[in-house]
Amino acid sequence: MAEILTDKQRDKALATLNGWVYDDVGDSISHVFKFKDFSEAFGFMCRVALAAESANHHPDWTNSFNKVTIILTSHDAGGLTQKDTALAKIIDEILI
Amino acid sequence: MAEILTDKQRDKALATLNGWVYDDVGDSISHVFKFKDFSEAFGFMCRVALAAESANHHPDWTNSFNKVTIILTSHDAGGLTQKDTALAKIIDEILI
Repeated sequence: MAEILTDKQRDKALATLNGWVYDDVGDSISHVFKFKDFSEAFGFMCRVALAAESANHHPDWTNSFNKVTIILTSHDAGGLTQKDTALAKIIDEILI
Repeated sequence: MAEILTDKQRDKALATLNGWVYDDVGDSISHVFKFKDFSEAFGFMCRVALAAESANHHPDWTNSFNKVTIILTSHDAGGLTQKDTALAKIIDEILI
């Protein structure tokens, strides 16, 4: 199981990510993404789903028409781990 | 724009659906679906996404690993309409 990130490790990882917000209650990071329409939003979700399945690490996420909210935390570890920041990085790269 | 269902119309429609729950606060219907794993859950979401796009009526939904929660309401009409119950019926049929 991946280990919970220390505050220092978390801050260092967040500095390399694009617009992810840390939530200390859930020990998670989240990001709201907005797209042109549902088709574009769900296309993005398909790419994230493939990346998540490859990483064997899955997001908690919500979609409403053109909006996708992604929350990442490691439920098995009980908080934020390197698996979350690595998946966030991959998601960022999908959008470049 | 589709019209808001009357109580009688809603009850009649719900009786034809499989396990959808009415929420009077949001004037919406919802259903939690559980699958074997993420792959099965997201495969279901892909089928629902295609149906939703075809119907030009989209769900508010959340996924966490093998769980998919779908909420249907017609935001433009301000409540539950025939578009929602029709999409719920299509979703039910995906799972038969």
